[in-house]
Amino acid sequence: VLITLTSDFGSRDPYVGIMKGRILQRCADATLIDLTHELTPYRPEEAGFWLWRSIPWFPPGSVHVAVVDPGVGTGRALVVARAHGQLYLAPDNGLLGLVVQADAAAETRHIEVARLGGRLGVATPSATFHGRDLLAPLAAELAAGRCAPEDLGPVAAIRPGALTPAALHNGVWTGAIGAIDRFGNLLSTIDAEQLKHPAAATVELGGRRLPMVRTYGEAAEGSYVALVNAFGVLEVARVCGNAAEGLGVQWGSPFRAWESAEATPS
Amino acid sequence: VLITLTSDFGSRDPYVGIMKGRILQRCADATLIDLTHELTPYRPEEAGFWLWRSIPWFPPGSVHVAVVDPGVGTGRALVVARAHGQLYLAPDNGLLGLVVQADAAAETRHIEVARLGGRLGVATPSATFHGRDLLAPLAAELAAGRCAPEDLGPVAAIRPGALTPAALHNGVWTGAIGAIDRFGNLLSTIDAEQLKHPAAATVELGGRRLPMVRTYGEAAEGSYVALVNAFGVLEVARVCGNAAEGLGVQWGSPFRAWESAEATPS
Amino acid sequence: VLITLTSDFGSRDPYVGIMKGRILQRCADATLIDLTHELTPYRPEEAGFWLWRSIPWFPPGSVHVAVVDPGVGTGRALVVARAHGQLYLAPDNGLLGLVVQADAAAETRHIEVARLGGRLGVATPSATFHGRDLLAPLAAELAAGRCAPEDLGPVAAIRPGALTPAALHNGVWTGAIGAIDRFGNLLSTIDAEQLKHPAAATVELGGRRLPMVRTYGEAAEGSYVALVNAFGVLEVARVCGNAAEGLGVQWGSPFRAWESAEATPS
Repeated sequence: VLITLTSDFGSRDPYVGIMKGRILQRCADATLIDLTHELTPYRPEEAGFWLWRSIPWFPPGSVHVAVVDPGVGTGRALVVARAHGQLYLAPDNGLLGLVVQADAAAETRHIEVARLGGRLGVATPSATFHGRDLLAPLAAELAAGRCAPEDLGPVAAIRPGALTPAALHNGVWTGAIGAIDRFGNLLSTIDAEQLKHPAAATVELGGRRLPMVRTYGEAAEGSYVALVNAFGVLEVARVCGNAAEGLGVQWGSPFRAWESAEATPS
Repeated sequence: VLITLTSDFGSRDPYVGIMKGRILQRCADATLIDLTHELTPYRPEEAGFWLWRSIPWFPPGSVHVAVVDPGVGTGRALVVARAHGQLYLAPDNGLLGLVVQADAAAETRHIEVARLGGRLGVATPSATFHGRDLLAPLAAELAAGRCAPEDLGPVAAIRPGALTPAALHNGVWTGAIGAIDRFGNLLSTIDAEQLKHPAAATVELGGRRLPMVRTYGEAAEGSYVALVNAFGVLEVARVCGNAAEGLGVQWGSPFRAWESAEATPS
Repeated sequence: VLITLTSDFGSRDPYVGIMKGRILQRCADATLIDLTHELTPYRPEEAGFWLWRSIPWFPPGSVHVAVVDPGVGTGRALVVARAHGQLYLAPDNGLLGLVVQADAAAETRHIEVARLGGRLGVATPSATFHGRDLLAPLAAELAAGRCAPEDLGPVAAIRPGALTPAALHNGVWTGAIGAIDRFGNLLSTIDAEQLKHPAAATVELGGRRLPMVRTYGEAAEGSYVALVNAFGVLEVARVCGNAAEGLGVQWGSPFRAWESAEATPS
């Protein structure tokens, strides 16, 4: 079974490697993949953004562990979600909002850690490394088929987080910047599949209205363009430049799009 | 089967992890290894340099996927090469030049993407992420033994790229700087096996003639030395320093060596 | 079998990937985990610190390869250690001191490289890349069960290194800063299990006496605190800050702790 790991742990300290050892102690034949460990701390929703856009690229039954967890050691819950034929483990801090909201049949549960101690082989989890002490062994148990989400705790709603699915109002889709990649490209939460003719849409971001292009190469160097990117969402980029720096917008900033001349964005 | 991944994607965004998910969707028992993802963009030949020097260290039948691809979305072809008992997938931009030229029996083919759509499970590949949409599923199909290079397209010559094999003229081997490592060491394209007595050679780089040493420790701190490195090529290093910065030479700069007093470099 | 890799090789060059290829050439079903490759060069003991604190998190029989090796190419020995039900391969430069000293039944051996040439498939190892040429194939042979530590060389004491186990004298435990993480937290070599009531201890570091807290959140922003961290050792941190920079202490600096009012630290 495939288990992916996503975090803000960085690569300098051996924390990710130790989580992997802990998983393989309990599920020796798991295949482990790092999604990324360089996420911005304090932005669990950005981890969730990438998990959301990764859904089509992982096999059914994959188990995804995501740890961007500024609240570790406080009373925040841990959650397990079944959605899109895959399983997700994360803190209940908004990280899984987009993933869960994209599947009407998704089921989410609060993990009853106190009740699971024996199963996890951890008498007393550390106060600060729940990735290793709770999520890693749970992922291994799920991947090994020795338990199911039903065994981990009761069905419960999860926190939706700062990123909510893009919404249509008066012909205008309003989403937000859900991720900024290393080139400064601004990825929105607006799924191009929601639009009828994305190629004909107009995008508004940071006070500018931008034309849609098919690829970066269709506009002059330094200009801002909107496009449907490789992850199927509307994106704003600066040709051969850094759109995030140039436009002065931030993660979470509103991102709007409309398809017809009849739309009247306020 | 072993599949290696090499790119300039960096580690901040989840692109490599998503490529791996795509591979494991179609070949669940592949073993995946990252060669490096920190290569310099716009230098496909440097990726190829490392693949060339990695040949002895991977098992027969390994599949290597390399994506340094400034031309993604343009008309450049994708190629599959069979060489050294291993398989290579890359854009046709010079990346595979050294690998292919080092095997007289190498066979290269242009991949007929349009014809393979059904096989790849991708109706419409994205314009910018061919690593995920084309090369990853092709690598999985090859590794799983469900197709062979013959099925992917016709035999065709590939672009040789900026790095060509070192050549001998009037007793002087002329190659180029093929890679610069993080210490600023300058690795040439001159294979030490081409020389009869590499320990007695003279190296010329950036206007300097340098003595050969066996290890870095044999010369004074700060001095420039030439040696046969752990990858079997002639290298210029600065003892306890950065040769690339000190000599003012660049990737691709000419690198020369001769063995005998009779050689008369111009 | 699980094989972990730890080094100061960084991620820019393909050295780690090539070591993995070399391992999988000889042990195709090994599972490979990176502990970290961003360790500080010239500090083999820091690699050993992390291996020591990782002991509980890897399955029995795991093979750990660690390469922080400023003496590569000199006469320093390579060692194999059997400890904690796991196997360790490293240069004999102090790297394995803490790991070995934590197991009274540990057995250490000097590897007789010259005698093993045939077994390793390397006629002449390179002068500078013993990780690939010696440790990788040895790890593969051990993991595949084709040889045991007994086959590699005679029992021999190893160099203890700069980090020695914390010692108790007149009621005061004296250890050292064994690792500094990316947040500037200072991890000591004092195992909290050595103290009867770690929560009631006093810690002294860089001339300051610090109170113990349970988690970072219990003290004011900017203040220095001591705590038992997720790896079971005493740690000094600065709340929302960088303790290493703020205190002006360094890796290896003495770190002291005592539990009772009767202790009289000099």
